[in-house]
Amino acid sequence: MKKWLIAAAVAASFGAHADEGMWQPYQLPSMAAELKAKGLEIDAKSISKLTEFPMNAVVSLGGCSASFVSPKGLVVTNHHCAYGSIAYNSTAENNRLKDGFLAKKYSEELPASPGSRIYVTEKVTNVTDQVKAGLDGVTGDAFYKGIENHRKELVAECEKEDGYRCSVYSFHGGLEYYLIKQMQIRDVRLVYNPAGSIGKYGGDIDNWMWPRHTGDFSFYRAYVGKNGKPADYSKDNVPYEPKSFLKVSAKGVKEGDFVMVAGYPGRTNRYRTSVEVENQFEWTYPHSKALREDIINIIKKAAPEGSDDRIKYESTLAGLANYAKNYGSMIEFYAKSPLLADRKAREAKLTAWIAQDSARQAKYGAALTNLDRLVTQAQQHKERNLILGYLGYSRMLSTATRLYRLAHEKQLPDMQRESGYQNRDMTRFTQGLQRIDRSYAPKVEKAIVFDLLQRYAKLPKSERLDAFDQFFGLENGLNKAKLKQRLDSMYADTTLANSKTRLGWMKKSVADFKASDDPFIQYAVAMYDTNMKREQESKQRAGDFMKARPLYMEAIIAYNRSQGKPVYADANSSLRVTVGHVQGYYPQDGLYAVPFTTLEGIEHKDTGKEPFDAPKKQLELIKQQKYGEYYMPEIGSVPVNFLSTLDTTGGNSGSPTLNGKAELVGLLFDGVYESIIGDWGYDPQTNRSIQVDSRYMLWVMKYLDGADNLLEEMDIVK
Amino acid sequence: MKKWLIAAAVAASFGAHADEGMWQPYQLPSMAAELKAKGLEIDAKSISKLTEFPMNAVVSLGGCSASFVSPKGLVVTNHHCAYGSIAYNSTAENNRLKDGFLAKKYSEELPASPGSRIYVTEKVTNVTDQVKAGLDGVTGDAFYKGIENHRKELVAECEKEDGYRCSVYSFHGGLEYYLIKQMQIRDVRLVYNPAGSIGKYGGDIDNWMWPRHTGDFSFYRAYVGKNGKPADYSKDNVPYEPKSFLKVSAKGVKEGDFVMVAGYPGRTNRYRTSVEVENQFEWTYPHSKALREDIINIIKKAAPEGSDDRIKYESTLAGLANYAKNYGSMIEFYAKSPLLADRKAREAKLTAWIAQDSARQAKYGAALTNLDRLVTQAQQHKERNLILGYLGYSRMLSTATRLYRLAHEKQLPDMQRESGYQNRDMTRFTQGLQRIDRSYAPKVEKAIVFDLLQRYAKLPKSERLDAFDQFFGLENGLNKAKLKQRLDSMYADTTLANSKTRLGWMKKSVADFKASDDPFIQYAVAMYDTNMKREQESKQRAGDFMKARPLYMEAIIAYNRSQGKPVYADANSSLRVTVGHVQGYYPQDGLYAVPFTTLEGIEHKDTGKEPFDAPKKQLELIKQQKYGEYYMPEIGSVPVNFLSTLDTTGGNSGSPTLNGKAELVGLLFDGVYESIIGDWGYDPQTNRSIQVDSRYMLWVMKYLDGADNLLEEMDIVK
Repeated sequence: MKKWLIAAAVAASFGAHADEGMWQPYQLPSMAAELKAKGLEIDAKSISKLTEFPMNAVVSLGGCSASFVSPKGLVVTNHHCAYGSIAYNSTAENNRLKDGFLAKKYSEELPASPGSRIYVTEKVTNVTDQVKAGLDGVTGDAFYKGIENHRKELVAECEKEDGYRCSVYSFHGGLEYYLIKQMQIRDVRLVYNPAGSIGKYGGDIDNWMWPRHTGDFSFYRAYVGKNGKPADYSKDNVPYEPKSFLKVSAKGVKEGDFVMVAGYPGRTNRYRTSVEVENQFEWTYPHSKALREDIINIIKKAAPEGSDDRIKYESTLAGLANYAKNYGSMIEFYAKSPLLADRKAREAKLTAWIAQDSARQAKYGAALTNLDRLVTQAQQHKERNLILGYLGYSRMLSTATRLYRLAHEKQLPDMQRESGYQNRDMTRFTQGLQRIDRSYAPKVEKAIVFDLLQRYAKLPKSERLDAFDQFFGLENGLNKAKLKQRLDSMYADTTLANSKTRLGWMKKSVADFKASDDPFIQYAVAMYDTNMKREQESKQRAGDFMKARPLYMEAIIAYNRSQGKPVYADANSSLRVTVGHVQGYYPQDGLYAVPFTTLEGIEHKDTGKEPFDAPKKQLELIKQQKYGEYYMPEIGSVPVNFLSTLDTTGGNSGSPTLNGKAELVGLLFDGVYESIIGDWGYDPQTNRSIQVDSRYMLWVMKYLDGADNLLEEMDIVK
Repeated sequence: MKKWLIAAAVAASFGAHADEGMWQPYQLPSMAAELKAKGLEIDAKSISKLTEFPMNAVVSLGGCSASFVSPKGLVVTNHHCAYGSIAYNSTAENNRLKDGFLAKKYSEELPASPGSRIYVTEKVTNVTDQVKAGLDGVTGDAFYKGIENHRKELVAECEKEDGYRCSVYSFHGGLEYYLIKQMQIRDVRLVYNPAGSIGKYGGDIDNWMWPRHTGDFSFYRAYVGKNGKPADYSKDNVPYEPKSFLKVSAKGVKEGDFVMVAGYPGRTNRYRTSVEVENQFEWTYPHSKALREDIINIIKKAAPEGSDDRIKYESTLAGLANYAKNYGSMIEFYAKSPLLADRKAREAKLTAWIAQDSARQAKYGAALTNLDRLVTQAQQHKERNLILGYLGYSRMLSTATRLYRLAHEKQLPDMQRESGYQNRDMTRFTQGLQRIDRSYAPKVEKAIVFDLLQRYAKLPKSERLDAFDQFFGLENGLNKAKLKQRLDSMYADTTLANSKTRLGWMKKSVADFKASDDPFIQYAVAMYDTNMKREQESKQRAGDFMKARPLYMEAIIAYNRSQGKPVYADANSSLRVTVGHVQGYYPQDGLYAVPFTTLEGIEHKDTGKEPFDAPKKQLELIKQQKYGEYYMPEIGSVPVNFLSTLDTTGGNSGSPTLNGKAELVGLLFDGVYESIIGDWGYDPQTNRSIQVDSRYMLWVMKYLDGADNLLEEMDIVK
């Protein structure tokens, strides 16, 4: 298949792997010559400075990326990133999800869904020394706790300044730590979103797929207090004036053009060892996929189509199915890809390089072996852990467990509490408890738990947890009828399903829990010691990993440096820059995915039924070939979506895709199906990101939605 | 979508529709300049002569096409065309379908399946005047009979020469008639076929699909008596020595190259009126598809997976499903295509052109209207006809009907008998009766008939046939229980399921039938008058069509001539030539089907399970990149299949695909899914034929199967 690339219309003019890499901004100046050769026109140094253009225009929404596109705090992101806020502002009568929404002036803009935030990264400080201070001889659990305490202290200190959210991010598995300081804008408003049949065109069917025709974009506006500082929502707040913003290109890109993306990629596993890769793809993904599919079937059977219960479980089902599909892709492409062989070859090369030098050998000689020993240890109880992990789908079991943990943690000073149980976490904790009503039905949950407990009961004795066995009466093997009876009475007797009662437990003491006759509370009490012991072991291991993995990463970095190659860290939701080109790919021998789709493709896909139900007016405009100034001669139409070699992953959604001048030419919103495995290894031949083209965004705004006020507000360049 | 063609790597350098046309060889000299410009290197005149190279090397297998590729009568065709003969020579122990077969010398060659024939077209004579002689004032039924009688006489006269099969083919719906004389070689032997996992690689899943990786080729040899004349199988027969044969190209073609195909396309409907198009796509295809799907479900329910009955119905199921898929494609692409609008526009243009001239108006003014009136009449009973047509799936009903008809026809002199009941038809008739045992199970058939009769009973009274109603007791509406009882007793009481009894009825008289108490024989007797009346009406209409359609076609031809355009006749299983280019296409906006697939694509598709279970040795060779002399630098591999713009249809299977020098560069074996609707209208953007590349054939023969004897026998050119 790779041979086809030679014959491709626009052959890549750069070597393999050249577009791989999620770079920390500070790394870019050292790559200036390469970036310039690729097509970057602005100074690489300027991109490394977070408080200067263009990086100060790139923001995080927490889970998604976005960017400022006007001097008045206008923010563009994906439709699917603003989805919650659009849904929040939709009713049956005024369905903005379905029909779209456009505020013609500030006063018409709508509050985003509660908890919506815009994070502007202002400062990134290497705090490795502070985090590791005084922990040189420390190991295991103590090392883990020491690191955690230093991180908490740094965060607390940083967050003293009002309006800021701070986090300490671990890079390279704990080799380095960075304190990231973000201004947290709390008054976010919805400004404009196209109709669902534009913004979600193709829906779940087209998810991860090419050809694609999704208008996945929407607009927010950031508001601050009159003093320019972040503030809670108020009518008196004013639009935030960012120090800079991105110009939007009406000219766009063409095949082969340089593009770059700045955003917040969530997580990759590019440096996992071959032992980890093998276990993940040959055990974890297949088993998780099968388990997910079983749970899906159980839910569908317990909550038939059309029932109220089904509505409650739709989102659970979607989540289960989404990752079952994701894992399916992982498994499919792992079988075809040289991922494992490549990883083993890399390790062999590294090992050989280390052995060349006695000093190296002394320092790194055991790094991989030690890491893999921990990896193997961590896999020891994988079957049990998988089953108990999926028991988390039981709202009752997990809620009772978390509430009882809270009662314990509350006894400690705030700074000593486990992360997730500190005062700063309580709003989210409460919201989580409230949300349960919308996604819980006892009959369905009971069926899931019943299935998982039967799987648990099949585990060998050595893998079983005594407290768990005793609580569910599994000490002497499985008696299905008895177990069913036990679950029936638990779900009949619990009062945790009542929202008020549930929230009430947040204030109760450990003694209150111990005295309770609620069966799920009793479960939490019965399991507490066992859970704490397991957590302790897990922290012990985590501490060991936090020693072992950095050493291995250090070896990799040293090796790459010896080859003159920079190393990027695995994604960890922090701000990164990736560079690439507009380019198609060969999804199969005999098929070439061309890098642009066209307006006509919308018409061809259209069935009139969701998710292929483009607005009538749009279909009319397409028939009339109303391309306007967004016409792209090379394709004879307006481009809708385009493919690039950009190295991205979940969390990059909404990222501005920039040309060499740092003008916005598109929004990244997805990767192709073949890219899913890319989280484990970037393949230059099939890793492709999908962008919505800026020309399509502008075309929809101008011809379909008449968003002239926004078109005027933005700086649109030809 | 069409816009993409501009940006395609190798843009077509010729106008739209330029590659449309299934030409009769005699038409080619008048197109010589155009053919030369396209890339034909040999003289167009030579192609027009059936007894000269290359046309005398192109043969028919009856339903498939093929060609001579050695001076010793070696014939190459598709694997799927030789399938019956391979299956015939396969047993559980010696499974040549699965493992492949290679005769290393003449004596190892195996007799093809009974009835296998090779037809060498020797003479095509325009007999329009003879066929229509003396029928000027005659119309309707009499005209139909007159034409039929003249055709039979011409055939009888022509077939006097031993070893020949003759047919009179109607062109342009009866505007012209040609007598086609074919030498009929009766001793056909299987020489070589690759393993099923090469020849059927991709199976039904890939049927009509691109990308494709099927090695759809096999070899026969033609044998004749020692006198060089056709003879029945005999050990003493000798290989036939054709006057010429095709050289096989080891160089092959590349993107954009000229190609042509000579073969026997079965049937197209390019000149049907818009009224016919609309009825076919908006009524016939949707209703037939739905009915087929219902019957499929009935069979599957009555004959569960794994049952003996299911085995008997597998081929019926495959046939039903194959055309349900075909009709599905028709419906899908009709909705997207401008077929109907184009047809209406063509008619409007024609009508306007006719109206320009009073002589034209006098001659052709009513041609379309008259034709459409007949079309509408013919559609009158379409619902009833559809149901009764599918009742043909009842072996018992149709066999009894045909047997009783035979008893009647036998009373007439042979020449006056209905076609299909003449002496020359009796071998086939007998074989048909024998075959029933393999595809009949009373329980399954009863379920189908029960369903169809219920549908029939829902027809309005006016559409019902009295004799039919009476026979099945439907005069006073449907009584399901009673009908079921009736069918139960019919299938319990009949002896027609017995092969000997069935064959015995071939010798019986009309009186014997009338006296029979077999319920199906009674059905045939009861329906005879009604059936004959319906047939009479149908012949009446056929006669009318045979007057009306030629006039309309004459108008179209005159119009096209006025535009300087030649007109090709709709396909009718006679020898045709079509020219085109190696070219990909855009199956969807954003996807380009590149014109070649590669060996590596086989490996990528391979799952180890049928139909994607390439031989281990092949996968090994691919891994080793053992391309040898069949390497194509442009794709960096050996090409497996390629796409062309050639205008082909069913019956063209096995046709040699030739380069400009008339060297064999591939074998045509399929069209892409988007081409199925092409039988009704050729779309230069999506009509693509699929060929197996000669380089892949040679590669398989040399490296996989060691068919050195055949490689030596053929004339392979680089």
